[in-house]
Amino acid sequence: MMKNVISAVCIKCGAEHEAVPTVTTCKKCGGILDIKYDYRYIRSQIDRKKLADRKENTMWRYMEYLPVTGESKVNKLRVGMSPFYEAPRLAERLGIRKLYIKDDGINPTASLKDRASAMAVVKAEEAGMTTIACSSTGNAASSLAGNAAAAGFETYIFVPERAPKGKVAQLMVFGANVISVKGSYEDTFELSAQAIDRWGWYNRNAAINPYLMEGKKTVALEIAEQMNWEMPDYIAISVGDGCTIGGLWKGLKDLYETGMIDRLPRIISVQAEGCCPLNRSIMENQPWTPMEENTLADSIAVGVPRNPDKALNAIRESDGVPVNVSDEEILEAMKLLGSAGVFAEPAGATGTAGVKKAIAQGLIPADASVVSVVTGSGLKDVANAMKAAGEPLAIEPDMNLLLDAFHSRGLK
Amino acid sequence: MMKNVISAVCIKCGAEHEAVPTVTTCKKCGGILDIKYDYRYIRSQIDRKKLADRKENTMWRYMEYLPVTGESKVNKLRVGMSPFYEAPRLAERLGIRKLYIKDDGINPTASLKDRASAMAVVKAEEAGMTTIACSSTGNAASSLAGNAAAAGFETYIFVPERAPKGKVAQLMVFGANVISVKGSYEDTFELSAQAIDRWGWYNRNAAINPYLMEGKKTVALEIAEQMNWEMPDYIAISVGDGCTIGGLWKGLKDLYETGMIDRLPRIISVQAEGCCPLNRSIMENQPWTPMEENTLADSIAVGVPRNPDKALNAIRESDGVPVNVSDEEILEAMKLLGSAGVFAEPAGATGTAGVKKAIAQGLIPADASVVSVVTGSGLKDVANAMKAAGEPLAIEPDMNLLLDAFHSRGLK
Repeated sequence: MMKNVISAVCIKCGAEHEAVPTVTTCKKCGGILDIKYDYRYIRSQIDRKKLADRKENTMWRYMEYLPVTGESKVNKLRVGMSPFYEAPRLAERLGIRKLYIKDDGINPTASLKDRASAMAVVKAEEAGMTTIACSSTGNAASSLAGNAAAAGFETYIFVPERAPKGKVAQLMVFGANVISVKGSYEDTFELSAQAIDRWGWYNRNAAINPYLMEGKKTVALEIAEQMNWEMPDYIAISVGDGCTIGGLWKGLKDLYETGMIDRLPRIISVQAEGCCPLNRSIMENQPWTPMEENTLADSIAVGVPRNPDKALNAIRESDGVPVNVSDEEILEAMKLLGSAGVFAEPAGATGTAGVKKAIAQGLIPADASVVSVVTGSGLKDVANAMKAAGEPLAIEPDMNLLLDAFHSRGLK
Repeated sequence: MMKNVISAVCIKCGAEHEAVPTVTTCKKCGGILDIKYDYRYIRSQIDRKKLADRKENTMWRYMEYLPVTGESKVNKLRVGMSPFYEAPRLAERLGIRKLYIKDDGINPTASLKDRASAMAVVKAEEAGMTTIACSSTGNAASSLAGNAAAAGFETYIFVPERAPKGKVAQLMVFGANVISVKGSYEDTFELSAQAIDRWGWYNRNAAINPYLMEGKKTVALEIAEQMNWEMPDYIAISVGDGCTIGGLWKGLKDLYETGMIDRLPRIISVQAEGCCPLNRSIMENQPWTPMEENTLADSIAVGVPRNPDKALNAIRESDGVPVNVSDEEILEAMKLLGSAGVFAEPAGATGTAGVKKAIAQGLIPADASVVSVVTGSGLKDVANAMKAAGEPLAIEPDMNLLLDAFHSRGLK
């Protein structure tokens, strides 16, 4: 029994459903569901002081805000409470007063998606199921495989054949049953849906399972606590299918409604120029329409976002700032983050690319404070890291040659 | 002024040196130095209860045990306090009573080496230097580059041309000055030594700088605290140049001498069969001699270990268990760890391969408790992960074909 949860509400037709572990989309209209909380109850259970005294250093330290009973006892990977850095030199380079980095690449399977997958494993256990399935080309899949393996659950993961080999290797090492589908991502999704239906596996497909966003929202709770509850003016995040920005905003609103923070930051929604259906919808004030997937940032190359409504809500409600960036700007942002000791994959650096562009274009003021969320580790995509980083100085082992080379490069 | 440190003692001739930040090897005999502590002073400053109340969730929570003044104020990456898991299903598969995994792949640059590099940056700052150099083919280099970048320090890193491109990319993203030397590792080391001499950079070369091991020893302090000070019977770790096993043992002894733990675990020293000069020396009771570097576990492919004495001491003093494993056994251990949700690079899984072999050969009893240290993330070496993990099921997007394929593989 979850005392803090009221229901699962359809964001389209408003129908309320009981928040059982297996609830998926709206039974009436097929719309996406949102978990509704009893904020008065949460307020009576938790405050800043109680949180500060808590030893649990994972996303589960925010139990009062999460749709779980507290009795779930799966063996879990240590997800969340990722590093939070102030980056003064990077702020200076970008021309902004305060810049902070939330590095969610430092998670067990190296991406923010671990927050959703950890939640999926707990909900599957509550539902009494031991097999979890999803279709994905990347981080959602590897995070599910890793978190499920740690808990002793079986996974079936459907990937399109074009999935990067490295990510497939990660899945295989975690012992997932990986089905490589000779077809498009749509074909893959469709086959996974049929298989999930047939065998009754627990469904971790994005936007189908309303609990995943509740896991993702913990990134907002951590940012607030790590900033000592003094919220920044802006939070920048890369946007693909819309679940992550939706989760970020949900977390911020939960904190605001329960009196933990005094104001809500504005969201900087960053997409790739070559694939920006959600930002385009905001900018042109038109309904969103599909786009091609022309960007090297594979994790956000989503032409048909699966959670557009929550994402668009997040941008609108927060008086958000949509920014589109080129692949070159993304690669440049990987080097900028690297100069602060943070190694991001392209989609992970996209938020920071957006911050740079928003400052340069005067979309946000120079005296603002900004948190940029890094959503995944650069070790996930070494090929693009090399594209960003350039070549080293190559030289014979001779001190005089080294002197010459340094001289000609203006070093030392 | 470090009140807890007495001196830097040569482990060869016993000469004592003042522990200034720039101290390197023994001025008298060239031997490797070891930092000597005032254990009575440390005992007067810290106890289990005080530690438990401490908020600092990094390696720096153990300040009383570290050779730093406490006044160093560099911006740091969040190194240490890596996850510690009990792995009951893996214990059962291996036939051992209790198995725990210390996952040091979850560190800012994804390896245990971050502990040493974080220390190097602090000591460089204490020495008033802003440029740090080292030669390395892998994790030491990337951890130095990342930790130095976060602190705003410049780095010069010498790599042999055969260095894996992925690791070079990591260096370049972190903004290091990378010199790719057309020659062997020995050539590379030699050129770096000349350059460090000439320009007076801070030296992060393994075994030359006695503070690095003090950083590495924090892995032992964390294991003890994460086990609630009840030590296991054994701790398994992979061994290359000897600095890491030396650091592990130093940390355990520090805890024992200050009354924080009641007994010392035995160390399981695991090397690759194709490159095991230190274990061979123990097994044959002969001085160590160089070996070729025939193993896919590149991080421990060290034919001429640079810190043999401290490593051999650690094995002998702890009544340790030397175990050599084949590359096949290392790949198998990567899958074993993966089944527990932990993705290790080959050298990172070598310790676990050794545990499996030690149990199977009766070198350690089945009712023992063992901690296995994972020293680096599998994302560092995707090629070998694929070698370990095998191929996924490839199929056309058709439900009947999926049914057939599952049937023939005995799935569902």
